[in-house]
Parts: sequence; structure tokens; C-alpha cells
Amino acid sequence: MEILQIDGSLSLKRTVDGGTEEQRKAVQAIIAEVRAYGDQALRTFTEKFDSVALDEFLVTEDEISEAYKTVSSQLVDIITEAAANIRRYHEKQLRPSWMTTEENGTMLGQKVTPLDSVGVYVPGGTAAYPSSVLMNVIPAKTAGVERIVMVSPPGRDGKLPAGVLVTADIAGVKEIYKIGGAQAIAALAYGTETIKPIDKITGPGNIYVALAKREVFGDVAIDMIAGPSEIGILADETARANEIAADLLSQAEHDTRACAVFVTTSRALAEDVQNEVYKQLSQLPRKEIATQAIENFGAIYVAADMDEAVSAINQLAPEHLEIVTENPMELLGKIKHAGAIFLGRYSSEPVGDYFAGPNHVLPTNGTARFSSPLSVEDFQKKSSIILYSEKAMNDNGAKIAEFARLEGLEAHARAVEARLK
Amino acid sequence: MEILQIDGSLSLKRTVDGGTEEQRKAVQAIIAEVRAYGDQALRTFTEKFDSVALDEFLVTEDEISEAYKTVSSQLVDIITEAAANIRRYHEKQLRPSWMTTEENGTMLGQKVTPLDSVGVYVPGGTAAYPSSVLMNVIPAKTAGVERIVMVSPPGRDGKLPAGVLVTADIAGVKEIYKIGGAQAIAALAYGTETIKPIDKITGPGNIYVALAKREVFGDVAIDMIAGPSEIGILADETARANEIAADLLSQAEHDTRACAVFVTTSRALAEDVQNEVYKQLSQLPRKEIATQAIENFGAIYVAADMDEAVSAINQLAPEHLEIVTENPMELLGKIKHAGAIFLGRYSSEPVGDYFAGPNHVLPTNGTARFSSPLSVEDFQKKSSIILYSEKAMNDNGAKIAEFARLEGLEAHARAVEARLK
Repeated sequence: MEILQIDGSLSLKRTVDGGTEEQRKAVQAIIAEVRAYGDQALRTFTEKFDSVALDEFLVTEDEISEAYKTVSSQLVDIITEAAANIRRYHEKQLRPSWMTTEENGTMLGQKVTPLDSVGVYVPGGTAAYPSSVLMNVIPAKTAGVERIVMVSPPGRDGKLPAGVLVTADIAGVKEIYKIGGAQAIAALAYGTETIKPIDKITGPGNIYVALAKREVFGDVAIDMIAGPSEIGILADETARANEIAADLLSQAEHDTRACAVFVTTSRALAEDVQNEVYKQLSQLPRKEIATQAIENFGAIYVAADMDEAVSAINQLAPEHLEIVTENPMELLGKIKHAGAIFLGRYSSEPVGDYFAGPNHVLPTNGTARFSSPLSVEDFQKKSSIILYSEKAMNDNGAKIAEFARLEGLEAHARAVEARLK
Repeated sequence: MEILQIDGSLSLKRTVDGGTEEQRKAVQAIIAEVRAYGDQALRTFTEKFDSVALDEFLVTEDEISEAYKTVSSQLVDIITEAAANIRRYHEKQLRPSWMTTEENGTMLGQKVTPLDSVGVYVPGGTAAYPSSVLMNVIPAKTAGVERIVMVSPPGRDGKLPAGVLVTADIAGVKEIYKIGGAQAIAALAYGTETIKPIDKITGPGNIYVALAKREVFGDVAIDMIAGPSEIGILADETARANEIAADLLSQAEHDTRACAVFVTTSRALAEDVQNEVYKQLSQLPRKEIATQAIENFGAIYVAADMDEAVSAINQLAPEHLEIVTENPMELLGKIKHAGAIFLGRYSSEPVGDYFAGPNHVLPTNGTARFSSPLSVEDFQKKSSIILYSEKAMNDNGAKIAEFARLEGLEAHARAVEARLK
């Protein structure tokens, strides 16, 4: 992890795994099989990829009860409190339908409707994160989605992790299937004998899941395809090196391609952070993953002044941004591009991953330039409402017809004029 | 255009042109050329595809002034009034950043920021619709986007249509390039010597433009890929057959694959509308296009009662929906899926295409199930804001660390605990 002087702009390495042509073909074949053979194809692929023969995919109430026995009541309480915090934050995103009335009797508006049904993918193995269940399900639930379906690949014992099941239950999911991979995405998008299709798929997954989401995109909606996790930290000399280093490492432990960038106006702090990173790194259980991330995608930049530092952060457009300066709030207005902004020394990034309330599904790979955190709005859609009055038509019909004729659309003009006769 | 009885569900034909493998390869090659050779590639492709040799692509102020000379002042007034209506409607979509404060000192919120730059594609030839300029540019402008770039393919005379230039000027576009096709999309996404890249591309185009938007998607944002235009009309016996027929035809004249579906509880009205459609069709300048659309993608359905009719409309999820019943407002709550809803006999669909205010860029091909009209929000993005207080950290830090350890993310736990020491 080098210390570099910002020189006009950052030179930054980031990568997104787009998959190979071979992987794309494999995914297309799996989707075609599920569309043709339904549940039978799901059984075959589950046996092949998850090494378990399942007759039924639906998680039973007994399985949920079993799961509660292996999760401590303390953890259940923590997850329940986190769910409440996340729900409270997302409820603030709810916006009503609206309507305006004009004196001539015309009414215009916008009607907000929840999606009918949503599928949430939860990865298997070590990436089966309960927090991810909360962050995908609660906004959908808050939006008013009636049917929320969760899918996740079973272990070799034919079960889902207890933490995931308990969290799904706390979040209010009633329909969970033990299927994973591209076959699960196909089942959600096109349905099988036992699984009714849904309208939108969200949630992270491996490259096969990501490619399958791309394939079904258009027939159903999908959320963004996430790249590796990222953090940018902006600090002045008042920040503590051990805290900055710990937060950089909390991103780095996610993925060998995770990106951790520190930008500071203080060269002394830069050096202290560099030392702290290596000191803490050696003590981490996931130090092999974190080391690769830090060496390949980590960087420390020294800026001449705070304006140059802020400009570098805007160029980076990080998924997570921490501002650890004497007055972080005064910089907020200058930050243009970041998925989530953490202000001050107590706003350590994991606070947002689990507990504070805002969503942890955030735009990666610089897409914060044009994308937003997962929100209630991702589970709703709008319809425009137009009630044109007789007076409005009499006043404006001729103008509308003339505009239509400018575009050569005579039938448009006549449709309006039919009301003027 | 047959009359059918609804029998549980609609059987509906709709198609989206996904392009061929050959077209996709051609588009990839064009994009690669523009990335490698910049302006020179643009010149070559413009000569090849638009049959005109251009040295400069930027539209000059002189060209704008020239354009005003060929558009009547009456039309300028109509376009200006339409622009004002569209602006007024879209300003109502603006939502502020927000912040909540908790007693323990924590602040959570959401910051709304406009995109830095947007590119608007305007098709050439007969599809060079001034209304499309208004509908794409005004929401971006209202959102606060600083740089709006318009591109459109030049005619053989090296010019853009006067109506398009005047409308762009009225909408406030300052940067217009005479380039089109996949090469224009590549220039917007990746930049050339003279064109700085943008963050998002919106606007309709032919299959090459649509495929190019798919290719650059991810590097920049894009709006939806639109299918052929659609209308669904829901009416009871109080509606007038000539008006229904005229509105069905106003969609049908757009495209040979446009979809026009009429659903009614009155068999007598169904028959009258069928007769009116053929009567009016024979009088239309674009009757060949409209006839193909009506014969292949038009249908009249008779429903047993209004509930069955509404359910059919929700299944259709049409881009445009007209409700022409005695009390259209009382059905509004039952409509779940439609891009824009037109209420009552004076709300003829072309009113929304040009003048009323709501956007005419709407979800097609049943995607109203999960998509929304183009809006101000499509030109903004959000950042979550988290200011966690010292007290909140002291109260909750241990819980957050325990949640992190449940997921096997030790560095996350330690980052939080670094603040608790």
C-alpha cells in the first residue's frame, strides 16, 4: 500500500468480473433447461451444483423453528433491533401519490404502486450474510410488496444456514426456496410448477448469478450488478490512524479485489495509517484476502489541500465514503459522488453495514456518479395521471393538433380534434 | 381487428426487436473504432451512414438562428407553452435531501444530487420528434444537470431539422452535435477529442442505437430500451366509438408493431369501435403502417363485467391506458400496472404526448409492472448520510461487533471496537 502525492488526478485500479463467454453460455443453457423442465431441472442442477438431492425446495415452518434453536437469543435481539432501525430509515423514503388541480378542471399527478412480487437472492456458503437479507427484504416490505420470495442454495445437508433463516423470519419472509445459482434466477424469472414467477430480482451472488440476472433482465427487473466492495476515507490531521486503518481493512477483508483508498491532507497521518494497516493486517483471520486487496487495490494519497482531496474523492465516486475531519459536516455539500457518506470518527463503516438503518446495497465501481443506494423506490413504480378537462381541451386542442402535425402524426391530430367537434 | 370475449386472460402479441448477432457485432466494431480514433472515426461513420462529410459536429449559433426563420412564430409559441407545462409538472417531482436527528445525537439522511452530465439522443429522419427533445431535456434540466448534450444524425445537407433545433433551444440545450447512430452513443459514453464524455444517455433510437446503449450500459447509465408504442383503452357503454377508434389509431400510426387494445363491458360499443377503426383507417396518411399494426397487434376484448375488464388491463400493463367510463376516477385505485393513465373522454392520449405536462417516455412491453415514466429522479442520484454519535457507538458498538462476527467478518468487528477502547 503505497503513499502517493495526488497529481491532478487519481490513478485507480478497479475491476469488475464480467464473466467469460463460456460462463455466459453455461448460464444460458441452465436457464433454457429450467424454462423447459421446471422443477425437474431444479432438482438436477441442485444435485449437480449443491451436491444434495431435494424433492421439495420450500423451507418448512419446522425448519424455521429448528433454526431458532441454534441462534442465541442475544443475536435474535440484535437482528431484531437492526431490522427495526432499517425499517424506520426506509419508511422515511416513502413518498405518497400526488395530484394537482388546475382552475380549468384539469388534474395531473403521479400514482405510486408497489411491485406485485419480488425475489431476493441470498448467496450460500461463507457469503450467506443475514445482514443482506435485512437490507433487501425490508425496503421491499416497506414499499408494500405483497409477495417476497427468497432463494438461497442449500448446503450438502440440504439446509440453509440458521442465521439466514432466522433473519428471513424476522424480516417477514414467508416463501423461501432452497435453490441457488443461475437455476434459481431462472425459476424466479420464468416460474416452475411450484414457484410462481416474480417481477424483480435483487440481491448479490457469484458470477453465475450475476450473468443469469443479466440474461433475464428485461423480462423482469433486476437491481444493479455489484462489483467488489470499496471504501474511500477522507481525513485531516485530527483523525486517528488506528481507526482509519481498521476501517480500510474492514473493506479489504471482503474480497481480494476490494478497493480501499485513503486520501488525506496530512503526510504524517498517511505514514501512521500505512504502518497501522500492516500491523493490524497481520492479526486478521482473513489476512490473506485482505492483504491481496490492500496490495492490489489499496492506496494512500496525500493532497495539497482539502479542495484537492475532495476533488479526488469525487473522481473516485466510492461506494462508501468516510469523512474524518474536524468539521465533517462542512464538507458534505462539496461531496458529489458517493454511495453512502459516513461523517465523523464514530461513523465507522460497519455501523452502516449492519445497524444504523440506511441500506448497505450501494453503487460500486464509480457508478455512484449515476446510481443510488437500494431503496424503497426500487420496489415501487409510478404511473402518470392525466385528467384533461373539457375546458382544457377546448382551449388547447388546436395547439396540440398543430404540434402533432409538425411531427407528421395526422392520426394524433385527428384524435384530439374528434373532441373539438 | 377481431372482437374476442375475455376468457380468464388476454392472449396478447407483443414484440421487441432485440437485434441480430450480426447487428450486435457491427455495433461493437463501431464503438471500438470511436474509442480508438475519436473524431476521425465520427467523420468516417457520418460520411458512410449519413452521406455527408462534416469537419465540425457542433451546431453553431448561426444554425439555431437559421432554424428559427423556418418555424412559424405560432409553432414557437406552442412549443414554448408545452415546455412550460412539462417543466411545471416535473418540478413537482423534485424531492429535497432529508436528515433526521435522534436524541443520542445520531443523524441519518439522504442527499440528492443531480448527475453532472447527460446525453440525449434524438433520432433522425421522420422520427426527429421535437416533443421527444422536450420530454428528455426538461426533466434533466429540472433535476439540476449542468451539462446536457444533444446528438442527432445530420441530413444529407449536413443540417438538423429546424423543429428539433428550435425545440432544443427552447428547452435550453447549449451543446448539440450532428452525429447519430452507434457512433454517437460511443462518443457520448467514452468521449472524443472534441466531445467530453457524459454520465447517462437517454432518448429513443433505431436498433443500432438501442444495441449501442446496451453495450455501453455499466460504463454509463442508460434509460430503458423502448419497445413499440402501446395503448390500452378501457370503456363502458357511455364512451363514443369514434373517439375510441381515433385514439387506437393514434398509437397504430407510430409503428407497424404498435399495439392497440380495446377492452369494454359493452358488446355494442365493441362493434361500433371496430367499424369506426376501419372507417377512419382508410382516411389516414399513414394508413399502411396503421393497418399492419391494427391487424397484427390490435384487439378488441369484451369483458363480462368491469372487474374482469380491469383485471385484463392489469395483465396487459399497457404503456398508455385510457379509462373512458362514467366515473373513471373510481377505477383509478384498482389499476395496478400502466405507464400513464388518461381519465375521461377529454384525456385523449396525444394530450400527454405533447402538452399536458407528464412525460411521454413510458415503460412498454408490459414493463409497467416494474418500471416508471421518465422523471426528474432519473437525472439525480442519492447518497445515504450517516453521522453516528459517540453515545450511539457506546450503546450499540458491541451489538454491531457481534453481528459482524456472526458473518465471520472479524475486521468489521474490530473497526467498531477500535472506537470503544
